[in-house]
Amino acid sequence: MSRVEWVCRKCGFRSDLWSTYYWRCPVCGSPLYIEYEYRFEKEERRDLRRFSGMLPFTPEKSRGEGFTRLVEEKINENRVLFKLEYLNPSGSFKDRGSSLAIYYAYKMGFREVVEDTSGNTGISVALYSKLYGLRARIYMPRTAPEGKKKLVKSLGAEIIEAPTRADASEAVLRDLSSDRFYVAHTWNYLYALGASTIAYEVYEEFGVPDYVISPIGSGGLLLGLYLGFENLRRLGLASKTPTLIGVQGYSAQPVYEKMYGRREAGESSDLADGIMVSNPPRINDIIEAIKSSGGRVVLVGNREISEATRELYEMGFIVEPTSAAAYAVYKKIQGGTKRSSVLIPLTGSGLKLVSSLS
Amino acid sequence: MSRVEWVCRKCGFRSDLWSTYYWRCPVCGSPLYIEYEYRFEKEERRDLRRFSGMLPFTPEKSRGEGFTRLVEEKINENRVLFKLEYLNPSGSFKDRGSSLAIYYAYKMGFREVVEDTSGNTGISVALYSKLYGLRARIYMPRTAPEGKKKLVKSLGAEIIEAPTRADASEAVLRDLSSDRFYVAHTWNYLYALGASTIAYEVYEEFGVPDYVISPIGSGGLLLGLYLGFENLRRLGLASKTPTLIGVQGYSAQPVYEKMYGRREAGESSDLADGIMVSNPPRINDIIEAIKSSGGRVVLVGNREISEATRELYEMGFIVEPTSAAAYAVYKKIQGGTKRSSVLIPLTGSGLKLVSSLS
Repeated sequence: MSRVEWVCRKCGFRSDLWSTYYWRCPVCGSPLYIEYEYRFEKEERRDLRRFSGMLPFTPEKSRGEGFTRLVEEKINENRVLFKLEYLNPSGSFKDRGSSLAIYYAYKMGFREVVEDTSGNTGISVALYSKLYGLRARIYMPRTAPEGKKKLVKSLGAEIIEAPTRADASEAVLRDLSSDRFYVAHTWNYLYALGASTIAYEVYEEFGVPDYVISPIGSGGLLLGLYLGFENLRRLGLASKTPTLIGVQGYSAQPVYEKMYGRREAGESSDLADGIMVSNPPRINDIIEAIKSSGGRVVLVGNREISEATRELYEMGFIVEPTSAAAYAVYKKIQGGTKRSSVLIPLTGSGLKLVSSLS
Repeated sequence: MSRVEWVCRKCGFRSDLWSTYYWRCPVCGSPLYIEYEYRFEKEERRDLRRFSGMLPFTPEKSRGEGFTRLVEEKINENRVLFKLEYLNPSGSFKDRGSSLAIYYAYKMGFREVVEDTSGNTGISVALYSKLYGLRARIYMPRTAPEGKKKLVKSLGAEIIEAPTRADASEAVLRDLSSDRFYVAHTWNYLYALGASTIAYEVYEEFGVPDYVISPIGSGGLLLGLYLGFENLRRLGLASKTPTLIGVQGYSAQPVYEKMYGRREAGESSDLADGIMVSNPPRINDIIEAIKSSGGRVVLVGNREISEATRELYEMGFIVEPTSAAAYAVYKKIQGGTKRSSVLIPLTGSGLKLVSSLS
C-alpha cells in the first residue's frame, strides 16, 4: 500500500495515517488533510466503494451508503440535477463520511466513539459504530429534534444532552481520552473525502455540471464536492469544474461575513438546523473553494426555506429543511443560470422529522 | 406496441389495458392479471425502469424508485441477502407499484386518485399522484401511525379517516365514481408487477437465491417475487426458482389457515401493521406460489418481531417492524437452511415511525 499521511498545510506537520489518529494538528491546532495517491477506476460496486480508488482506504462493510440516485428535472430552462442523498441508510449524506471515519476508528483499535452533533451525524455515527462493534456516545443539544434523538438511541448509542450545540462541543472535549475516537466531523477530513464521492458518481452518470448549490454547515459537503470535481480536472478527466454556490442562513452566516466583510440582515433561518454552524473550522478553505470556482454565498431565511420544502415535497422529494435551503437558493438565482446544469444535493431525509410536521 | 390486456383467469374476460381501467373483473369480480410480451433487456437506468422490457409499459417519470441496494451478510452458515427496499423514495417497496399504477392513471386521463390503506401505500400513492399532477384522497384507519398520516398530508393528499381499516375500504368503495382512479393496491396487478422487478435486480446482481422470505399482507410482494423469478426461468435465464417462505402474524393468518386448514395460537402480531391483512384478494395465487416453490408459511408474534427489529437496527438497518417480521422468520427457520442463500426484502423505513419509538 502506498503512503497515506495526515498533513497540516499550516505548519507542515506530517504523520502516517495508520500510526496515530489526530482530529486536528497536534502542533498548531489547524484542521488536517489526508494525502495519498489516487486513481479514477470504477469498481463494480453499488455503494460508496465504487470509486474507492479515489479514497485513502476501502471500508470492509457497507450498508448501501453512496451511489445515490440522480434525478433530473427541467426547471425553467435549466437542467436541475437532484442527488438523492437523503436515501442513504441513516437518511443523510453524512453516511459517506461516517462509513470512512468509523471504519478507520475500528482499524485503529478504538473501542469507543464520541461525537458532538445537532442530529444527522449522530444517527450516522451511531449506525456505523454499531456496524463495526464500537460503543458510541453522542453529545447533543437538548433542542435537537426528538425524532433524531430517538433514532440515535435505537441504534444503540448513548446520548449525553447539553443545553446548546456549543455546550455539547465543550462537553465532548472535556471527556476526551486516548482510548476514545473523537469523530469531530466538522474537522475530520474523512467527511470531506466521503462527500467527494458524490462528485465521482455525478461525473460517471452525467458529467460535470455548470453549477453546484451546496448547503454550508461545517462545510464538509461543499469542500468534498469541490475536491471531487477538482480531482477529476487534475486527472485530466474533466476540462472544467462547477461554479460553487454556497448556502447559508441569515441566522448563521460566518462564510458570507468573512467573504464579503459584512453581515446581511434577514429573518431567522433556524428551520435549517444543519446549516446553523457559526464557526466552521475550514472556513478559509471554503472561501477559497468558492472564490476559485467563480462562485458566491447566498443567504436564505425561514420563509424561503419553508416554501422550498413544500415545493420539494410536492415534487416527490421527502427532505428536511436544510436540504430545501439549497433549492430555495436555486429559486433565488435561477434567473442568472439560464440553460445551465445545476447540481443540488438533497442532503437529509424528511422522514426523521415527521413528528414535527405541521 | 404489442398488445397488452387485462385478463380474468377465472371467467375468461379480456380487455385492452389502454381502453378501460378495471380494478377487478367487471364480469365475475375476481382479481385481474395483465398479459403482454416481455423481454429481459437491461437498460442503463438506475431506477425501476432498468428492466422495463419485463413490464407492460414504462413510466415517464422517476423519483429513484427501485434499483435498491443488496447487502449481503454471512449469518451462521447462510448468505443472507438484504434488499434495502426501505430506501425507496417514500420509504417502502410500494413505490415500485405506485410508479406504475399512478403513471397508468395519468395516461388514462384520470384527474383524481383514491385509495384505502393502513399507511405506506398512502404515502407512496400521494407522492406519485403529486408527481403526475393528480389529486389524491387517501382513506385511512384512525389508528394508523400519526407520522404516516402527517406524511400523506405533507405530500399534498387529502386524508379521510375511518374507524378501522375495514371501514376505510368500505368508505372508498362507496365514494367510487368513473372519473376517480381507485388504486386498489391489494387487487391491482401493477403492484405485483412492480414488486417483480426486485427479482430482476437480484438476478442481475447475485443470481437466484435458494430461499426468499417475504411478508404477506395483501401478497403483492410475495407474488411479485414469485412472478419475477418464474419469468426468468421461463425465459431460460435461470434453471431454478427460490423456495418461498411466506410470513404472517398470529393475529392475521388467512394464508396459513387456508393452506393448512387450521389456525395456530400465539401472541398478538399487531406491531407488524403491514401484514395485518385478513382477506388478501389473491389468496389462491399466494398459496399456489408457495406450494409450487416447495415452501411454506411461518407465523410470528410481537416478541419475535420486536427482537428482530432491535437486531436489524443494531445491524444498521433502520426498518419498520413489518420488515423485521421476515427476519424474525429467518431466525426461526435458519437451522433448516444451512449453507444457503436467503433473500429478505426489508420492506419499509423505520424513520417514519420515530415518533413512536420507545
